[in-house]
Amino acid sequence: MEEKGGGGGGLQCAQRGRKILFVGFSDATHLGPSEEWRKQRGVGSPYLFIQMNELLGSPENQEWRETGRWILFEEKLDLEAKHWSSPHVPTLSLSSIWELRALLTTGLVLLDCSVQSLSELTEQVSRLESLNPEGRERLKSVLLQRPQHHIQPMCWSALQSPLWQKLPPGTEAAAVLVGELDFLTQRLGVFVHFLEPVVLGTLTEVPLPMRFVCIILGPPALDKGYHEMGRAAAVLLSDPVFRWSACQASSPQDLLSAMDAFLEKVVVLPPGGVDLTERIPPPKCLSNVHKRLPSQLQESKDSCNGNISSKRDRYGYEHEPQPTSKELQRTGRLFGGLVQDIRRKAPWYLSDFLDALDAQSFSAILYIYLATIANAITFGGLLGDATDNTQGVLESFLGTAVAGSIFCLFAGQPLTILSSTGPVLVFERILFAFSRDHGLDYLPFRLWVGIWVAVFCLVLVATEASVLVRYFTRFTEEGFCALISLIFIYDAIGKMLSLAEVYPIYRPGLSGDTGSTPYGCLCYFRDTKGGQKGGDLGLANVSLLSPPECALQGGQSRGLGCHFVPDIAFFSLILFFATFLCATILKHFKSSHFFPSRVRKVISDFSMVLAILLGCGLDASLGLSTPKLIVPSEFKPTHPDRKWLVPLFGTNPWWLCLATALPALLMSILVFMDQQITAVILNRKEYQLQKGAGFHLDLFWVAMLMLLTSAFGLPWYVSTTVISLAHMDSLRRESATCAPGELPRFLGIREQRLTGLVVFILTGASIFLAPGLKFIPMPVLYGTFFYMGIAALSSTQFSERMKLLLMPAKHQPDLLFLRHVRLSRIHLFTTVQLVCLGLLWAVKSTAAAIVFPLMLLGLVGIRKALEWVFSPQELSWLDDPVPEENAKKVQQEKVLELEFNPRGNNSEHMSLETPEINISVN
Amino acid sequence: MEEKGGGGGGLQCAQRGRKILFVGFSDATHLGPSEEWRKQRGVGSPYLFIQMNELLGSPENQEWRETGRWILFEEKLDLEAKHWSSPHVPTLSLSSIWELRALLTTGLVLLDCSVQSLSELTEQVSRLESLNPEGRERLKSVLLQRPQHHIQPMCWSALQSPLWQKLPPGTEAAAVLVGELDFLTQRLGVFVHFLEPVVLGTLTEVPLPMRFVCIILGPPALDKGYHEMGRAAAVLLSDPVFRWSACQASSPQDLLSAMDAFLEKVVVLPPGGVDLTERIPPPKCLSNVHKRLPSQLQESKDSCNGNISSKRDRYGYEHEPQPTSKELQRTGRLFGGLVQDIRRKAPWYLSDFLDALDAQSFSAILYIYLATIANAITFGGLLGDATDNTQGVLESFLGTAVAGSIFCLFAGQPLTILSSTGPVLVFERILFAFSRDHGLDYLPFRLWVGIWVAVFCLVLVATEASVLVRYFTRFTEEGFCALISLIFIYDAIGKMLSLAEVYPIYRPGLSGDTGSTPYGCLCYFRDTKGGQKGGDLGLANVSLLSPPECALQGGQSRGLGCHFVPDIAFFSLILFFATFLCATILKHFKSSHFFPSRVRKVISDFSMVLAILLGCGLDASLGLSTPKLIVPSEFKPTHPDRKWLVPLFGTNPWWLCLATALPALLMSILVFMDQQITAVILNRKEYQLQKGAGFHLDLFWVAMLMLLTSAFGLPWYVSTTVISLAHMDSLRRESATCAPGELPRFLGIREQRLTGLVVFILTGASIFLAPGLKFIPMPVLYGTFFYMGIAALSSTQFSERMKLLLMPAKHQPDLLFLRHVRLSRIHLFTTVQLVCLGLLWAVKSTAAAIVFPLMLLGLVGIRKALEWVFSPQELSWLDDPVPEENAKKVQQEKVLELEFNPRGNNSEHMSLETPEINISVN
Repeated sequence: MEEKGGGGGGLQCAQRGRKILFVGFSDATHLGPSEEWRKQRGVGSPYLFIQMNELLGSPENQEWRETGRWILFEEKLDLEAKHWSSPHVPTLSLSSIWELRALLTTGLVLLDCSVQSLSELTEQVSRLESLNPEGRERLKSVLLQRPQHHIQPMCWSALQSPLWQKLPPGTEAAAVLVGELDFLTQRLGVFVHFLEPVVLGTLTEVPLPMRFVCIILGPPALDKGYHEMGRAAAVLLSDPVFRWSACQASSPQDLLSAMDAFLEKVVVLPPGGVDLTERIPPPKCLSNVHKRLPSQLQESKDSCNGNISSKRDRYGYEHEPQPTSKELQRTGRLFGGLVQDIRRKAPWYLSDFLDALDAQSFSAILYIYLATIANAITFGGLLGDATDNTQGVLESFLGTAVAGSIFCLFAGQPLTILSSTGPVLVFERILFAFSRDHGLDYLPFRLWVGIWVAVFCLVLVATEASVLVRYFTRFTEEGFCALISLIFIYDAIGKMLSLAEVYPIYRPGLSGDTGSTPYGCLCYFRDTKGGQKGGDLGLANVSLLSPPECALQGGQSRGLGCHFVPDIAFFSLILFFATFLCATILKHFKSSHFFPSRVRKVISDFSMVLAILLGCGLDASLGLSTPKLIVPSEFKPTHPDRKWLVPLFGTNPWWLCLATALPALLMSILVFMDQQITAVILNRKEYQLQKGAGFHLDLFWVAMLMLLTSAFGLPWYVSTTVISLAHMDSLRRESATCAPGELPRFLGIREQRLTGLVVFILTGASIFLAPGLKFIPMPVLYGTFFYMGIAALSSTQFSERMKLLLMPAKHQPDLLFLRHVRLSRIHLFTTVQLVCLGLLWAVKSTAAAIVFPLMLLGLVGIRKALEWVFSPQELSWLDDPVPEENAKKVQQEKVLELEFNPRGNNSEHMSLETPEINISVN
Repeated sequence: MEEKGGGGGGLQCAQRGRKILFVGFSDATHLGPSEEWRKQRGVGSPYLFIQMNELLGSPENQEWRETGRWILFEEKLDLEAKHWSSPHVPTLSLSSIWELRALLTTGLVLLDCSVQSLSELTEQVSRLESLNPEGRERLKSVLLQRPQHHIQPMCWSALQSPLWQKLPPGTEAAAVLVGELDFLTQRLGVFVHFLEPVVLGTLTEVPLPMRFVCIILGPPALDKGYHEMGRAAAVLLSDPVFRWSACQASSPQDLLSAMDAFLEKVVVLPPGGVDLTERIPPPKCLSNVHKRLPSQLQESKDSCNGNISSKRDRYGYEHEPQPTSKELQRTGRLFGGLVQDIRRKAPWYLSDFLDALDAQSFSAILYIYLATIANAITFGGLLGDATDNTQGVLESFLGTAVAGSIFCLFAGQPLTILSSTGPVLVFERILFAFSRDHGLDYLPFRLWVGIWVAVFCLVLVATEASVLVRYFTRFTEEGFCALISLIFIYDAIGKMLSLAEVYPIYRPGLSGDTGSTPYGCLCYFRDTKGGQKGGDLGLANVSLLSPPECALQGGQSRGLGCHFVPDIAFFSLILFFATFLCATILKHFKSSHFFPSRVRKVISDFSMVLAILLGCGLDASLGLSTPKLIVPSEFKPTHPDRKWLVPLFGTNPWWLCLATALPALLMSILVFMDQQITAVILNRKEYQLQKGAGFHLDLFWVAMLMLLTSAFGLPWYVSTTVISLAHMDSLRRESATCAPGELPRFLGIREQRLTGLVVFILTGASIFLAPGLKFIPMPVLYGTFFYMGIAALSSTQFSERMKLLLMPAKHQPDLLFLRHVRLSRIHLFTTVQLVCLGLLWAVKSTAAAIVFPLMLLGLVGIRKALEWVFSPQELSWLDDPVPEENAKKVQQEKVLELEFNPRGNNSEHMSLETPEINISVN
């Protein structure tokens, strides 16, 4: 063989010809199929299933057994344990590749071959061999022997194997046959590329058409050389670039060049670099493979590019400046942006309903419905609590249903979910405190604020103010988010402490005040008839009945201890922490290893609902009289003294309708920032939204809803980041079929209006479930409140940087910004943020609370001022780049810096870390 | 240069000669230093500090700047962030190594060079260059330019840098100089090996003597070629084998061969195998590097071999059979083993005290003292609780002090710590229940049991029964451990539930029983004088004072609610979980990234103590009347009716002294198993104990102490695994100096008697602190009890295998036994263990409880029977191999199997996983 195969010549099968032509290699472009055809067939199928069969057993009783398989990664058959190893990155030795190269240099290379069966192939392979006739027959019989595949224990046929069901149609196969044969005197290397893929008996465990076959046989050897050469061949074939080159190859020399090209791209680790006893898990990002493909083949191959999480760091931020999208360009006309938004969105309107027709929408609806309900309960309960029930749970449900439905039907970005969470809720509480302190009629006062806010928002729409959102950088966003989170946490703890005041703890050490002891309550009866019931004391008209029983029997409870309810304070604390811990643990259950991933995802998605249910169950099982959510039993406003429609003035002076313009101005800033920050996040480039955003249109509808909700005394609504992101996440379209170890590819978002609409209709229908809500203990709601605060706070880069303050440098994670910005500068930036946060908190807590929206806006100014302290490079790593003109410059400088910066092979270019979105709170 | 340097010739500096001889290469064994000398100098110093300096800046204003450094791993200077990256495994491209090889083939190779200064070296390098005189001068001036090193911000001189302080004396350096020079027309490659290391100005950031210099210069190029070649040179030099070969090299050809040898050993990953944007963290095990060194150089190099955790799987078990140590060979004479033990240990006795003289002993003493105290409190409290205070906390402290001190002074293995934990405690509880049910006087009954146990143990010592410990496999051990853990958990929960009965919760929903309401207590006075105090009710002689106050004022409390203490049940629950969670979280704080590792270790080590303190603080701050630990205020037995010395018979019948032999027999089995399992674990080969074990001697002293403690009514003691392992762990000797990314090497255990002795003397002194212990609430102790149970249970492989039952195959961790045993067989094994555990639990819970030691012994039999169900290979992975004759066979078969088994490059041979010990509970 070596003589015949040597010298650069070779054997080429004529196209589809049954006769084998022994011809020298000619130019493939003349003889072979067109390049177009090759592309379609050879590389067009995204996956190649490669199986290695080895000759095992004693020399007398050898049989082919499957020992390894590859698609993107290697899976080794653990022969003893009889199962596949987890997919891992193959490690090779250079010598195995070199030996393979040497073998193929002198071996048999069949390119564009067109045999139709295994026996034909066997015929060719054995005919070429420099063997005696007997050896040839033995070789043939060995090659024709049926291989033993490893079939998963529960599958009865190859077609039911999990692998087969995952591989997309059009997947082709390759077989690598390796073994020691005692009758051989020389090594035998064969590489076959089939012009048209053909099913060759049962060479592979799944009956796929075969594109490549590689045979490595030789006389018995002491080392594992053949095995390693086989692995090298399989790894080569698993490389898409090598495969592409092998399909293009027209001579053995081309094949060897392809191997050399592969060798140039391999990653070399020094001998101690990896612990070879541990299998290397697949990397999260496969982009570098596909970047090497010819450009026309790159599309839809890059598994990282399209991934939601790929181009962003772990906080969901891109480091590349956002391109100025059309939505954010000023038209210069009054309401020009609004008109443009409507024009841009109108053509999609029908598809906004048709695109929802998929099973995925059902699970999205269920998930978002439960999140919305949990939200409505929690914030309804809290808002009612904070505003003397002028808006309670019923209002929360009704408002959410009405406002959400209208928004989903008409807004620019129907993927956003409205909610009464966040700064608007904080501001409303400030307004309520203000109106109470000044003896105002709250709801009419609030109505005027709402009217003014709507007016101001319309002015902002008319003047196309939304284009200013480009100035909202991460600095502003995180300051905002941290403040809100802290308010959540502070309130939750405050509410729990106030519970301990309402339900005091009996401390014998501090028994000076008998009011808090449990021994101070008697039941008095007016007549002696009652006295008989009081016989337990031997007294005529006094009994030790508990206050409810006493009242039942016509008596009257007296004594300081009568209002003492024991155990409630501690039990509430237990409920609070149980809810918080349960939500936290279930949320992280997704990343545990127990149960199938689908089950885990469901548990993780519904963590909040499950936590609330657990809390309610715990409370119900003990039957303690913990404070519960107040829900009206009829469909009427929660506050008994009001009607649905809020009067224009009530008892307020007439001039209040003008004076409310001032707080309304402040609140407009809040509404604008809150709404638009969410919109910017949702419309980020990496989500690949096709139907565009509608910043002006969104704000217009927020203004309209502000009017509506104010008029009926319902909570105020703006888009909420957290649930909206969860909504989008539940509508991700991902590639379904994937090779072992491969992560699914992101294909886009199912953009439509239907899921949101159905969610809000269901929320409206749930109003009739509202009476059932009175079984929810308030501590459970405070627990979810606490959880949301902690989760939102810890999702910011700000909190990560605060953690860095406590970490010694050598234990810090390898974050991207740590590689590029000095630690002292990072700490300075964090400190500035902390000081800002402290100032905001101070303003919020003092009498000046009402101006805190202005302070929030001040964050934008402080961010601008930071440009005097930090270099553009530093800011570009720690924050988003601001104003676009500037951003371009920074970007250029950054690229220059990177080029100047001498990097190792492990340079990061502009590529970024790829962790998951974790802003999600629900 | 290329002409002169080419053709296999080269330049060699004569030894120490100032004159440079241009001679051809001759055989190094004649001209060069002796091989012995080379070995001592070249490779004998374990570390080589390699620094890469690059020419950076504009062509007019170039300067040398440090950009990378290597010892075992690569550290890259992140120029923007101005700090060193974390140590990581360098990734190279093949082409950079090939280019370097090509450059050195034609470049200047100076071996065994002996220049004395940088200018001399510069002179030689520039003289050889094919440059015009001006170019030579420029080259010289460039090379002589002072490089800019990166100095850590806080260090003012190189000698204070953290790196310098860590590197051991004798460390040498290498410099790699890389840059682009516009006046060069050809690439210039220089490799210098110094015969004797010399300090060359400030080439490196730390002033170490230089052993190698590599210079790569060339005309400006577009790619990062020079940088990558420089990295390749540095990585080559960081390989100890290449370094060794380079020191041995006598010609450039030898050097190239060394490079080729390096290339043969590198690990090749396919192009998509690693995400090059992420830095590869150093592997835990470096053994594969050193295995390639010539054998005489291997000693004390293998950082994994000596590591406590290295040869064992994550459960602390070796898979190789334990060699039959001398301690476990039968002498065949009465007390032969005991005599042998004494003979073997006696010569070490003086050193057993001298070896303790190290600062490490202090921290070991503090740690183990606190663990012992926590243990004495917890188990003292619980034992007292369970046995009507015949032994309380005071007895626990006294017994621990006396028994521990005696054992530390005289036992065979003074590293073991005695404790009253575990099965003996369980058995004592059974004995107490038995004596109570049959109206026996407990302490005399217990005394006779103790006497008989001592007798039986002495018989076991006399007959050298300890050699049977070889039959205690992991199956037995884990059955034992799981049962005890479950008892801990069950008891802790049971105690908490019984608290809820003592302190009932008031539930208004269930107010039918007024006894549990807080409204049923009045204070009656006999005279009208008291009635005035009762004026709060308007009644003559009744008041609503709380029971303590009522008693204080001469009244009498009556009513079902008088004994009601509110809030205690829930607060106890909070204390219980707070203690448990605090202990768990602090224990795992070690693996967090916050604070320096020393602080984390302290917090983790003292987690239990901190958790108890937290619980006490929480309790004290609220001042509730939670149940507290009962401690006598004087130095007298806790039980008021007894004296220290226990009477021989008391009220028991005389024949009981004979009848107690039966339970004593059962308990002897327990004591034997408990003591010897601990001893086996502590004497494992991987701890590299030098002074040997003393199984017979240990058992002898346990028997003696059994007599002593029984006579004085103190708890019974045997060695406890958990604290003993912690003791050994705190006495680990590890190599102090280490390169970035390197893990410290294990050097052995500080074997001595002093630390243990001091710990127990301190424990004795703490008896006077005992009154302060009455502030410890019982729920806190139950919390620690619960924590210990959970921690001990989860440290077993059994619990890991139970988790596997819930894990889908693809999410299972890559455990070693999973690679070798079929999943169904693993599950079968787990199920058998579960059934055994269920049976043991059933026996323990029924009237037959007293025979449960026999059942435990039955585990050994069941393990034997399993050999009919499982193959020896399977058992060798899931369990230890039993009887040595058998084990040898199994081992042989396993090796055969492994050789037959065709493995990938990532085969594991006999190497094992290397996680940490996690049996530690305290």
